[in-house]
Amino acid sequence: MSVLAVTGGVGGAKLAVGLAHILKPDQLVFLVNTGDDFCHLGLHISPDLDTLVYSLAGVACPKKGWGRRDETWSFVKTLNDLGGPAWFQLGDKDLALHVYRTQILNDGGSLTDATKEIAEALDVKHSVLPCSDDPIATVVDSEVGELSFQHYFVKHQCRPRVKRIKYDGAEHARLNLSLDLATISMVVICPSNPYLSVDPILAIPDFRKFLQSPNVPVLAVSPIVQGRALKGPTTKIMTELGYTVDNKTVARHYKELLTGLIVDEGDATDCETIMSLGIECIARNTVMRTLDDRIRLAQETLEFGNTLAN
Amino acid sequence: MSVLAVTGGVGGAKLAVGLAHILKPDQLVFLVNTGDDFCHLGLHISPDLDTLVYSLAGVACPKKGWGRRDETWSFVKTLNDLGGPAWFQLGDKDLALHVYRTQILNDGGSLTDATKEIAEALDVKHSVLPCSDDPIATVVDSEVGELSFQHYFVKHQCRPRVKRIKYDGAEHARLNLSLDLATISMVVICPSNPYLSVDPILAIPDFRKFLQSPNVPVLAVSPIVQGRALKGPTTKIMTELGYTVDNKTVARHYKELLTGLIVDEGDATDCETIMSLGIECIARNTVMRTLDDRIRLAQETLEFGNTLAN
Repeated sequence: MSVLAVTGGVGGAKLAVGLAHILKPDQLVFLVNTGDDFCHLGLHISPDLDTLVYSLAGVACPKKGWGRRDETWSFVKTLNDLGGPAWFQLGDKDLALHVYRTQILNDGGSLTDATKEIAEALDVKHSVLPCSDDPIATVVDSEVGELSFQHYFVKHQCRPRVKRIKYDGAEHARLNLSLDLATISMVVICPSNPYLSVDPILAIPDFRKFLQSPNVPVLAVSPIVQGRALKGPTTKIMTELGYTVDNKTVARHYKELLTGLIVDEGDATDCETIMSLGIECIARNTVMRTLDDRIRLAQETLEFGNTLAN
Repeated sequence: MSVLAVTGGVGGAKLAVGLAHILKPDQLVFLVNTGDDFCHLGLHISPDLDTLVYSLAGVACPKKGWGRRDETWSFVKTLNDLGGPAWFQLGDKDLALHVYRTQILNDGGSLTDATKEIAEALDVKHSVLPCSDDPIATVVDSEVGELSFQHYFVKHQCRPRVKRIKYDGAEHARLNLSLDLATISMVVICPSNPYLSVDPILAIPDFRKFLQSPNVPVLAVSPIVQGRALKGPTTKIMTELGYTVDNKTVARHYKELLTGLIVDEGDATDCETIMSLGIECIARNTVMRTLDDRIRLAQETLEFGNTLAN
């Protein structure tokens, strides 16, 4: 039986690394957001898959959390000099991965095939699965119109006010066909942005249905710490969508799916309200600065999950 | 009126740089081999166009003659680590150009459009024209079967014995539509490999017909110096095709087109035989080690052409 970890970008990848340190490759499967995927310069770019694979392989840039460590930037600087579209920062090493993946896709392989080959080449032993091989596109409906995720996130640096977020294609997307749900004994939603990183996965009908069944505990680590997200545009987006930025909003957001929520130790007073929604809740240190933090929080998450399974 | 310089790879680009130092942008047009062009990793790569543009822009690698100076190689090293096809050495800066060109082509632009944009971005003032916007592919029929040029040249490092060389598509290719032949007062065939770099251009019916008309002097600088080519596989290929490696073979090869041939000063004794074929011939120092060498030989070539025009 395996733990299924649902994850998006940099925050989720931190807990993912902790889980991978504790659980063996046959005990853990990652299901990763593809709503941020996009085609740029003819290349298929999968930011969340790459962040996770780089993190698991130990080659992620420790400072930025995404991209590769010891990266060089000759390509994008030269592209800029030529007048080409250089708004998306593509490192020279990172680019090799995008070119390789695009080749596999153009040769008829699936995103799952490409991810498997890349993970193997980088010596990643755990299964990393795109949430679907069907295209899902996170679209931000903003004050300046609809923006594809990367245009919102990178090109416009999250500046336009968000009105609504939708997940084009998710309704008809099939859950990754390599994932055998019968083997899953626990689901962990990693501390990624609920609206941008997790919801595109939850919007896949087969997966949502699975999470709503009572057989498997579903727990989440809240990405909110004392009224704000540690990283990225979560705080801004939640505010613009009209939500209070706190763990109670996160609990309500996942309500119909969630068995348990882990909030930061500084937010321990939220536990009571969350439990009144029918969701078990514990408070732990959820700020993961070091590898030890990641492993500790992963351990605490698994222990909490085990109590919920009984 | 303009000089039309017909050129291929590294050798031709040296004389081209000399010509560009002497003639103004409205006095000189380059017509460049595209028979080596190929699609690799989804990118349209035009080695001879790039060698010329980099040379004219002063950014070519002075040691190799192709690619860019101060290049970095993170991309191709990483691609190799991933298990991708890394046999074609693509520098990180060079790659930006291929990606940019491929984008323009995918957006519906022609190779002429792409080359113009790239040349402008690199501040190249002279017109650089692909010989045709229709595809021409140099194919080497070898002892191991038919090989596309780059597979022969780079992947197999010119090892297989050559039986025949053909130029797929050339027969139906239209000469570059931006080239106004009525403005051309002299044609200079630069010292590139006759079989690999020049013949694909000469195989375009419209261009061959133009060269055979008696109105415009056509001169060539021989790529052979004292029985061998200075660079590349010319010597090996000529031998395998059954030719003696000397200027007389070059003269006979271009015979029906050529008004004058410049041979190296060490081969001055060849002039008499060549003139007996009805081709004017002079001997000069054709070994271009420095920029001064390039300018001097270009000057001598233009002077020779002017005597033939009268």
